[in-house]
Amino acid sequence: MKDLAKVVMSRIEMLGRITDEPGRLMRTFCSPAMRRANDLVARWMRQAGLAVREDPVGNLLGHYSTSRSKSKIKNQKSKIQKVFVLGSHLDTVRNAGKFDGMLGVVLAIACVEQLKRKPTRLPFALEVVGFADEEGVRYQSACLGSRAMAGTLGASDLKRKDAAGVSMAEAIRRFGGNPDKLNQARFDSRRLLGYLEAHIEQGPVLEQQRLALGIVTAIAGQSRFKIIFTGHAGHAGTTPMRSRRDALCAAAEFILAVEKEARGNAGLVATVGQIQAEPNASNVIPGAVELTLDVRHQKDSMRKAARQRLRTLARRISAVRGVKGSVRLVQQTPAVPCSPGLSVFLKRSVLRHQRRVLALPSGAGHDAAVMAKITPVAMLFIRCKGGVSHHPAESVKIQDVRVALQVMSEFLALLARQAAGSSGAIGKTHAHGT
Amino acid sequence: MKDLAKVVMSRIEMLGRITDEPGRLMRTFCSPAMRRANDLVARWMRQAGLAVREDPVGNLLGHYSTSRSKSKIKNQKSKIQKVFVLGSHLDTVRNAGKFDGMLGVVLAIACVEQLKRKPTRLPFALEVVGFADEEGVRYQSACLGSRAMAGTLGASDLKRKDAAGVSMAEAIRRFGGNPDKLNQARFDSRRLLGYLEAHIEQGPVLEQQRLALGIVTAIAGQSRFKIIFTGHAGHAGTTPMRSRRDALCAAAEFILAVEKEARGNAGLVATVGQIQAEPNASNVIPGAVELTLDVRHQKDSMRKAARQRLRTLARRISAVRGVKGSVRLVQQTPAVPCSPGLSVFLKRSVLRHQRRVLALPSGAGHDAAVMAKITPVAMLFIRCKGGVSHHPAESVKIQDVRVALQVMSEFLALLARQAAGSSGAIGKTHAHGT
Repeated sequence: MKDLAKVVMSRIEMLGRITDEPGRLMRTFCSPAMRRANDLVARWMRQAGLAVREDPVGNLLGHYSTSRSKSKIKNQKSKIQKVFVLGSHLDTVRNAGKFDGMLGVVLAIACVEQLKRKPTRLPFALEVVGFADEEGVRYQSACLGSRAMAGTLGASDLKRKDAAGVSMAEAIRRFGGNPDKLNQARFDSRRLLGYLEAHIEQGPVLEQQRLALGIVTAIAGQSRFKIIFTGHAGHAGTTPMRSRRDALCAAAEFILAVEKEARGNAGLVATVGQIQAEPNASNVIPGAVELTLDVRHQKDSMRKAARQRLRTLARRISAVRGVKGSVRLVQQTPAVPCSPGLSVFLKRSVLRHQRRVLALPSGAGHDAAVMAKITPVAMLFIRCKGGVSHHPAESVKIQDVRVALQVMSEFLALLARQAAGSSGAIGKTHAHGT
Repeated sequence: MKDLAKVVMSRIEMLGRITDEPGRLMRTFCSPAMRRANDLVARWMRQAGLAVREDPVGNLLGHYSTSRSKSKIKNQKSKIQKVFVLGSHLDTVRNAGKFDGMLGVVLAIACVEQLKRKPTRLPFALEVVGFADEEGVRYQSACLGSRAMAGTLGASDLKRKDAAGVSMAEAIRRFGGNPDKLNQARFDSRRLLGYLEAHIEQGPVLEQQRLALGIVTAIAGQSRFKIIFTGHAGHAGTTPMRSRRDALCAAAEFILAVEKEARGNAGLVATVGQIQAEPNASNVIPGAVELTLDVRHQKDSMRKAARQRLRTLARRISAVRGVKGSVRLVQQTPAVPCSPGLSVFLKRSVLRHQRRVLALPSGAGHDAAVMAKITPVAMLFIRCKGGVSHHPAESVKIQDVRVALQVMSEFLALLARQAAGSSGAIGKTHAHGT
């Protein structure tokens, strides 16, 4: 019998070669490479016994059901079979690694293959999903696939244009989808039992703790700011130090204040990632500096408090230095807690393979955060080398993949046992993201 | 009789309209606009009674002599008349102001006109010079004009190419010069009595002190560095603060250390003008940051000591943060002291018009620094609005121009008196820049 972990790794290699840009991996929403990726993954799904379809926006779905008529868990008001969703996304960033997103989809398919090997009768159906877009590269708007499924993608989104001027509706049409039937992509939340996403950690914590897997407590909320310090440009040779209003010195003071604030508050991460000085010449005192600030925490109250303190710091630094400081909130997303109900099963499964369970927040956004709007969600993190992600150097060990596969199968088995006993009241204690 | 200060201001306006780029002022070495500028200034020189010529690299020279045969001060070994040089440059930076350089040339011509009004017999000749290049925009190499005159422009310089691939030799040829006769541009230092350059301050000190004029003590020495901090790029959401090696935080710490060092040492100016983060994305921890450092002081010993302390600081910051810091010296020029002998006359003249004399270093480089290789130099600074330079907003008051003109004429009269008395031993105590 084939080693499914090996199958997963070889499929990752194959997907990693399907790109819109020769020489490096990039696959964006409804692109030609996405067409080939969907077709290839659909073939694997069929081989695994899944009934494959593509929804109107290009999400790839594989349906699997072991239960027939009598053992079905039914919604009390309807005859429709309940569904548990497994998946992640198939699109990538520019110059991407092979594991981000793809690993979750390929693992979900292998999980079904695993279940078939020691036939496990599930009292619910499985839906394996490969989302058409999570990274948001083409339309500068993330999670298009899961948003269509959660019903939060609207007509105004369809009008967005890509860099070449192609509207999202047109791109979907060219891909073979149907933007007019956007509503049909929507899942009926009453049918759903929950959603599990396996994903590389994209951070160094599991590696540092020498653990293959981690369980996500919440997907961190995020505040993104644009900050501009405006001072006075001047000649670097002729302007005495005491006459300067150096915007870069103000920015430097702020950058260190951001670091100090985050270091002093457990779980908080804050980053100045982008900086641009004007006029940016070696012999001119910077007159203006623009920078970005990204603040994340799994607790919204903590993030909001930090946000406020950082605003105050920017104001104080500006006042002392006689420069102008402007702080503009660009984007904000609240934290999305994972379902404690589902996470308990995940934890129990992980503990069979690891001496301890590490529960950690996800600092990155995921489809799970969107799916949380319509169903309880859980996330399994898989260790990746050096925490590197969004880079060709993304790397995952085959033995970690093997354990993840076991954990996912056991998770489903635990879920099945509970579902059979409680007629579907899974994840009762889950908290929907708001 | 015409108000010469008004003449100066209207000539500045005329020159300010001669540009290679419609809509903004830019005039580079041997460009078509430079041709028109030289022709116009030559006309003014002739009107002032100067004998005009262009040297082989495009420097414009106007010769003026009131002394005839008998009253000549002669070099003891030759019959050649001694010459005092007045001037500045006629080229500009990109999107320049109207005063930087040009004011010194136009003032020198007006100074001759002034001398003719109350006929002053000078026991030496005057040479008014409009240098063809000081800013170095076209060939990324400054002071081409004065270097030709000082004999430090060589055959290798002539091979330099501009952005369009035109060699300097070819540009000179097209301009009407003769690169093969580069040596003829060279001044015989034995003929020279000294060089006086009037220039806008390009800094805010005179304005802050409410003084129209200042006397330059020295042209500051300069060290320019390229500094690179290399840490680890990482996901802004998933990398805990304690796991980061943020290159931008290291850079910020260095920027503030530079500021503190300069603030703590009188006369020192140090500037980080350019900064570039990699990958410079809002959701990625900066993995590398490159910045420029410009350190200047009128005393080389002070600059060298500061340089050493800043190197040590960069090393210390890198070590503490676990990042790599590289500090590379890109360019270095020693300080050039002005001649105390000439400056005494300048000071005496200024004191007739101002309650006190401010002696200050020039943080910017000037043709005077090059001319110091072959003759004693002095520089007169003229107040400019807000210290703004290299910008269309450069502005000088007509009353300050009027005073500068008086001071320059009186300076020459004092010089003439001394020269007549001492048969040419002017500036005995001057220190040549080395």
